[in-house]
Amino acid sequence: MTVKAETWPPQTEQVSDLVARLQQIVGSHHVIANAQDMAAYLSEPRDLFIGKALCVVLPGTTLEVAAVLKLCFETSVSIVPQGGNTGLVGGQIPDATGRQILLSLRRMTKLREIDLSSNTMIVEAGMTLAKVQEEAHAVERLFPLSLASEGSCTIGGNLATNAGGTAVLAYGNARDLVLGLEVVLADGRILHNLSKLKKDNTGYDLKHIFMGSEGTLGIITAACLKLFPMLASIETAFVGLASPQKAIDLLALVQRNAGDKLKTFELIPRIGLDFVLAHSEGPRDPLAQKHQWYVLIELGSQQLEGLRDSFLSLLESASEKAILEDASIATSLVQRQAFWALRERLSDVQKLEGGSIKHDVSVPISAIPAFLEEVETALQKAMPGARLCAFGHVGDGNIHCNVSQPLSADMAVDKARFLARWDEVNEIVHAIVIKYHGSISAEHGIGVLKRNLLVEVKDPVALAVMRAVKQALDPAGILNPGKVL
Amino acid sequence: MTVKAETWPPQTEQVSDLVARLQQIVGSHHVIANAQDMAAYLSEPRDLFIGKALCVVLPGTTLEVAAVLKLCFETSVSIVPQGGNTGLVGGQIPDATGRQILLSLRRMTKLREIDLSSNTMIVEAGMTLAKVQEEAHAVERLFPLSLASEGSCTIGGNLATNAGGTAVLAYGNARDLVLGLEVVLADGRILHNLSKLKKDNTGYDLKHIFMGSEGTLGIITAACLKLFPMLASIETAFVGLASPQKAIDLLALVQRNAGDKLKTFELIPRIGLDFVLAHSEGPRDPLAQKHQWYVLIELGSQQLEGLRDSFLSLLESASEKAILEDASIATSLVQRQAFWALRERLSDVQKLEGGSIKHDVSVPISAIPAFLEEVETALQKAMPGARLCAFGHVGDGNIHCNVSQPLSADMAVDKARFLARWDEVNEIVHAIVIKYHGSISAEHGIGVLKRNLLVEVKDPVALAVMRAVKQALDPAGILNPGKVL
Repeated sequence: MTVKAETWPPQTEQVSDLVARLQQIVGSHHVIANAQDMAAYLSEPRDLFIGKALCVVLPGTTLEVAAVLKLCFETSVSIVPQGGNTGLVGGQIPDATGRQILLSLRRMTKLREIDLSSNTMIVEAGMTLAKVQEEAHAVERLFPLSLASEGSCTIGGNLATNAGGTAVLAYGNARDLVLGLEVVLADGRILHNLSKLKKDNTGYDLKHIFMGSEGTLGIITAACLKLFPMLASIETAFVGLASPQKAIDLLALVQRNAGDKLKTFELIPRIGLDFVLAHSEGPRDPLAQKHQWYVLIELGSQQLEGLRDSFLSLLESASEKAILEDASIATSLVQRQAFWALRERLSDVQKLEGGSIKHDVSVPISAIPAFLEEVETALQKAMPGARLCAFGHVGDGNIHCNVSQPLSADMAVDKARFLARWDEVNEIVHAIVIKYHGSISAEHGIGVLKRNLLVEVKDPVALAVMRAVKQALDPAGILNPGKVL
Repeated sequence: MTVKAETWPPQTEQVSDLVARLQQIVGSHHVIANAQDMAAYLSEPRDLFIGKALCVVLPGTTLEVAAVLKLCFETSVSIVPQGGNTGLVGGQIPDATGRQILLSLRRMTKLREIDLSSNTMIVEAGMTLAKVQEEAHAVERLFPLSLASEGSCTIGGNLATNAGGTAVLAYGNARDLVLGLEVVLADGRILHNLSKLKKDNTGYDLKHIFMGSEGTLGIITAACLKLFPMLASIETAFVGLASPQKAIDLLALVQRNAGDKLKTFELIPRIGLDFVLAHSEGPRDPLAQKHQWYVLIELGSQQLEGLRDSFLSLLESASEKAILEDASIATSLVQRQAFWALRERLSDVQKLEGGSIKHDVSVPISAIPAFLEEVETALQKAMPGARLCAFGHVGDGNIHCNVSQPLSADMAVDKARFLARWDEVNEIVHAIVIKYHGSISAEHGIGVLKRNLLVEVKDPVALAVMRAVKQALDPAGILNPGKVL
């Protein structure tokens, strides 16, 4: 049986034959074909992307994934892989044709091995990130990847999208935490590359081709992850300063003195703090006076002693150099959590300030001050009163450059008018990103959302190489078609 | 003009036409076509690989590299890229046909940019590694890649081969030190990917395809490198212990307590120390008693104070746990250099102990003790008296598993007999490497030397994917043909 595009829509007996064959592979309970039960897989939390599917298939083993892909390859049916369904750019949602099969990795949750001497852990793709962290913790190791959605996102999805998060500064992106991968290719062949080796120069490094490819080149079914020593002490400071440039200066000072101990360096604008304080019961202003900008800094050490003292003297030295205006180191777990709450609520509270247009961008760290100034100027010119709330992982150059609607007499009415200018605001911000050789998607990926944008901003030679690699690994174009490229 | 394989050998006028066109591109002084001047490029220091070439071309800019490749693409002439000509597997040497062009990157030595806020540095491929380190040092930064050949090897070659060295444990392999690349593709197109961004999820991560591909997929012309804070204090210890397992236990203890401060962890067998002491004037036994095994440990910190005390208490704790037998921390720069000399002379002195058969292998760290035991047993069975001298980057799982000829009455005569069994010894060692899911080339690459071996040991699916990528990026097969694949 071949379900080719020319013969679409397929005859009912063709579909039911395909479903039957999928049931033979994964077991009849693990193929979902009715609309009601499929619904949870076909939309994502924000309902920005809603798709259709022939069916949802939930294989339990790598061999089952391979058999499903072989069948899809032979019948020319497209596959959309999905992990925890938390992606923000629609990469995990099928298109509207109803011709695609959604392949969920959720049943593949095994911990295959922990090797304490090698500091490695082999897990299957469907394990949630929180569970991966827990398994590492249970053997007194740290798996540092950390995201807001860690309770439901899966490690397979994290790797397929090269996830970022709050630990990138110290430990790198998701791809940097991987030693080896097991991948099922478009035609069902299995690439056995679950290496524990830190050094292996036997040919091309294939794992990096699949990580960040958003399921368009192969389906990651398991990974060998790096484990790290746990931190014995952590110190958290909230710092007030005059400008993004001062934040960059402070970052350089901390890197020079604390080096590898620096774990977090997050920029927060006063307007973001105002948003949080206006819409929350608990939080208080963390410092005695108001400042234009803040950074949340966290140092961590394998040693129990001495971290607080060296952090204090570092902050004093920054104060003497007039880099910072004020700083407070958390003296209790409660205070530490309060500092973090101010950072973590930044995304949420923007909803309560009316419409908000978001950008997940990065620029070289040295360019951040000029970049932010130009964005502010351009926004005010195009839309007087627009409220720029730029915050995020400044140590990685990654700024969530969000724009809230101007204050007005009738916020509700003006919200629609503001959101109607989404594309225009995107263009303003992205033009300045490109000017500074930045990225229009620092950590969320391309998916469907930024696919058309990618063609406009990416080096045409890079796009051509990407297309050549796609053609080489998925010549029939059945792996997550219409995503990324 | 097209110089096709079918028409080889080319007519003299075809060759001289090609040389003339190359001279037009790079200037007549920068094309070498006479055998005498080419000789230095066509063999490597050990004279294991000697090739021929149509000519040696030395472009001075990326545009010139692009024009040379475009011409080669149009005329179907193969290109062998070369940096400092220090590779150990013949990847940089043309074949014996005399039909290939050697493209040396040596003239491309510019430092294009240093960005202190971003901690990045853009250098051209032909800059030597030592010069890259110096340029970083001049602005009070560290570029940690460090190899024995750093005075002559080039950063382009380091990246094309994903070089290793003594700093991998703390800072990663060469590929981990790169943010962006500029690459000339097989047809002369230039991939502009000199990104300074730490986070960029706009499509496939192309740089990792080219790094470690040994010039078979594209020619790296420049790179954006990561810079690190300099170390304010360094402490070096020489430790005696009973077995490789104790070394692994000590590694775990040091990682748990010193974490990121651990910079070096090198294993040395007593026999290696005996070799060095027997053939050197200066060095003395570093500890009062003899031990079966040793490790050289180096900790580094951004802080001036406290490192020595914490290192001492760490070693004391290891002694109390009976992990180590004795240890000495260097109290002067001279003593530190003496410790390092013992490690660094290990390779050289083997020559003075007769024939030596070498293996650059890695296994999972947890497997090192069993691996070494099995290698010793298998060697003694096949060749009683063979002297295994296994040393190296144990923190990376990378062991230089070298075998010296048995002691005998007539070492010189027996040397030839011993070396005649090179392949047999390789097979014995590599079989055990494969059993432990290790790598037969941890840091030196494949080149010509291990090309046939690769086919035997690599997952066939991985080889197929490598071939598909090669076909996609170099369909005419003109980039370093016959290397790797």
